[in-house]
Amino acid sequence: MSSSSTGSRGETVPTVPSAAGVADDVDDVDGVDISGVLDRGRTLATPVLRAAVDRLAPPMDTVAAYHFGWIDAEGRPSAGDGGKAVRPALALLSAEAAGAAPEVGIPGAVAVELVHNFSLLHDDLMDGDEQRRHRDTVWKVHGPAQAILVGDALFALANEILLELGTVEAGRATRRLTTASRKLIDGQAQDISYEHRERVTVEECLEMEGNKTGALLACAVSIGAVLGGADERTADALERYGYHLGLAFQAVDDLLGIWGDPEATGKQTWSDLRQRKKSLPVVAALSAEGEAAERLGELLAADAKSSDFENFSEEEFAARAALIEEAGGRDWTAQEARRQHTIAVEALDSVDMPEKVRRQLVALADFVVVRKR
Amino acid sequence: MSSSSTGSRGETVPTVPSAAGVADDVDDVDGVDISGVLDRGRTLATPVLRAAVDRLAPPMDTVAAYHFGWIDAEGRPSAGDGGKAVRPALALLSAEAAGAAPEVGIPGAVAVELVHNFSLLHDDLMDGDEQRRHRDTVWKVHGPAQAILVGDALFALANEILLELGTVEAGRATRRLTTASRKLIDGQAQDISYEHRERVTVEECLEMEGNKTGALLACAVSIGAVLGGADERTADALERYGYHLGLAFQAVDDLLGIWGDPEATGKQTWSDLRQRKKSLPVVAALSAEGEAAERLGELLAADAKSSDFENFSEEEFAARAALIEEAGGRDWTAQEARRQHTIAVEALDSVDMPEKVRRQLVALADFVVVRKR
Repeated sequence: MSSSSTGSRGETVPTVPSAAGVADDVDDVDGVDISGVLDRGRTLATPVLRAAVDRLAPPMDTVAAYHFGWIDAEGRPSAGDGGKAVRPALALLSAEAAGAAPEVGIPGAVAVELVHNFSLLHDDLMDGDEQRRHRDTVWKVHGPAQAILVGDALFALANEILLELGTVEAGRATRRLTTASRKLIDGQAQDISYEHRERVTVEECLEMEGNKTGALLACAVSIGAVLGGADERTADALERYGYHLGLAFQAVDDLLGIWGDPEATGKQTWSDLRQRKKSLPVVAALSAEGEAAERLGELLAADAKSSDFENFSEEEFAARAALIEEAGGRDWTAQEARRQHTIAVEALDSVDMPEKVRRQLVALADFVVVRKR
Repeated sequence: MSSSSTGSRGETVPTVPSAAGVADDVDDVDGVDISGVLDRGRTLATPVLRAAVDRLAPPMDTVAAYHFGWIDAEGRPSAGDGGKAVRPALALLSAEAAGAAPEVGIPGAVAVELVHNFSLLHDDLMDGDEQRRHRDTVWKVHGPAQAILVGDALFALANEILLELGTVEAGRATRRLTTASRKLIDGQAQDISYEHRERVTVEECLEMEGNKTGALLACAVSIGAVLGGADERTADALERYGYHLGLAFQAVDDLLGIWGDPEATGKQTWSDLRQRKKSLPVVAALSAEGEAAERLGELLAADAKSSDFENFSEEEFAARAALIEEAGGRDWTAQEARRQHTIAVEALDSVDMPEKVRRQLVALADFVVVRKR
């Protein structure tokens, strides 16, 4: 690995090789209106998601509504920040990829969002994370028991939403969702166990990120097709696209977690370093040869034992980030994002789908790696 | 309600009217070898359950094995106490009720056990319970994060076990399991919210117990039949049997929770009173008219505020138990167990099943209300 030639923090998210001319403006990627694609997913899925959450018995409905950002801690309606909504957009495109109407993908979009949010509720509690989407997490506001309980309820609701369709396709879709959920849980188990280890290999890190991020994106982009009657081969190819899209997404997330602009990400500077996260740039840097990697290894080992870590200055984190960059962790991760992006886009070649849908899926992949937040 | 004419603690579990001549020896109820029925369920389901749990990634497999009692806290093999195993026995009988081989019910038995244990793992953590089946609970031994994570994994595994059968029947079975899981979660939500309330009605208590105990027993006794190709009407009738069996079971549990023999139940004396549980006898007594009910209400209201409750003597709990009995809470609950038992057994009339299977289901219902632990 060579040292990075990239510029100052926040300006170095990887350029997508296939997307010459892609501007910083993510509203238009490859001539596709990305905001429009994401908005459609959000607009079609959210009312059905809200109706599903409304089925929960009190007080679980209220706790869930708080988690989704529909109400504040006092129960007052709130505009909310539902996130980027990549998954619902993928589920609708997935249905269209199988030649079905986008609406066919809606129950899939809702089920995937429910599973995603079940895992957020439980992970935040397990990890002791106090903030999510600029607000206190559910366990902070409503207590650990409600975080566990409402997470469980959303998980059950996800299966209910699909199975009540009562079709053979719904059974197949639920099976894929269950497989993805198991991987999500495996990934969280790995994440927890890696925290207690001094060294994690790049392969272990990629496997964990594939489980935590890839599996559910893979499910999102196959579930609509399955509901639309696609065969297993088509669904598998779409899953491959989604899985590697997830890995590209996570690699970019790991870059933003260290070098992201706090104003864009809404996170603290050096966020992942403050949390001692063994993310890809860190793991890749530690596995490199040379002086920078060695010094980084010594520093992080000392940090792990330091009682003063909480009070580290900006400069101390900046020094660690510089070493990660010098050891090649930043470049390697940017290259990995491009590599995963390429595999994802290539997976689409084996699926016979409307050209417009393919262009949107490619543009979404490009968007995922050029985003700054 | 009249005051109770029953004798000393531990001797007064309700007698089943239809089961004249039922002895204390539960090995033989109505000429049916109950131990044999339960053993068959345990013997056929346990290896498949263990193989399912073995699929979990480390360390979740070990944590789950500890929970099930297959290993001790140090990881050494352990004989374990898997409980009464009523649910697996019901799932196999359920398959036979639909004219299928008992083995057809095995995936259903395993899925139901997985959901049951998912709920135990999470409930013990939410309730802060430190002991289960005479051992430290998972969150005490392996920490809260593992209790959440392994609970999630068992829940996902339950659906996986069914859906990988890949049949239409498996889809229907998963849907019933999902409905039962949602009720289980609703029941826990009610249980938690009732803890913070001074008064709970008998109806609310029965609804909560129906959700927490009835729904999964209902699923156990219908899931084998569904896997065996039974129609919805048959499955619904079997569910009715299971639901009311669950309510009978819980009513007896509530009696044993106050007046059970500690040597038989493995619990402390006055166990439910020590936990301030708003169980059926308490709720029924409080809703009665008369001096005893009034005095009980005053005492329990004072107890709720008492800082000395932890140090209460045997005599103080005995005095509360006596008031519950005097107000009619004990008699009412025993009668409720018999009433639910009757509804359960009557539900079997609408199902055309082999006479041997019917006799075993009736005997299991009788067993549930005459048991002493």
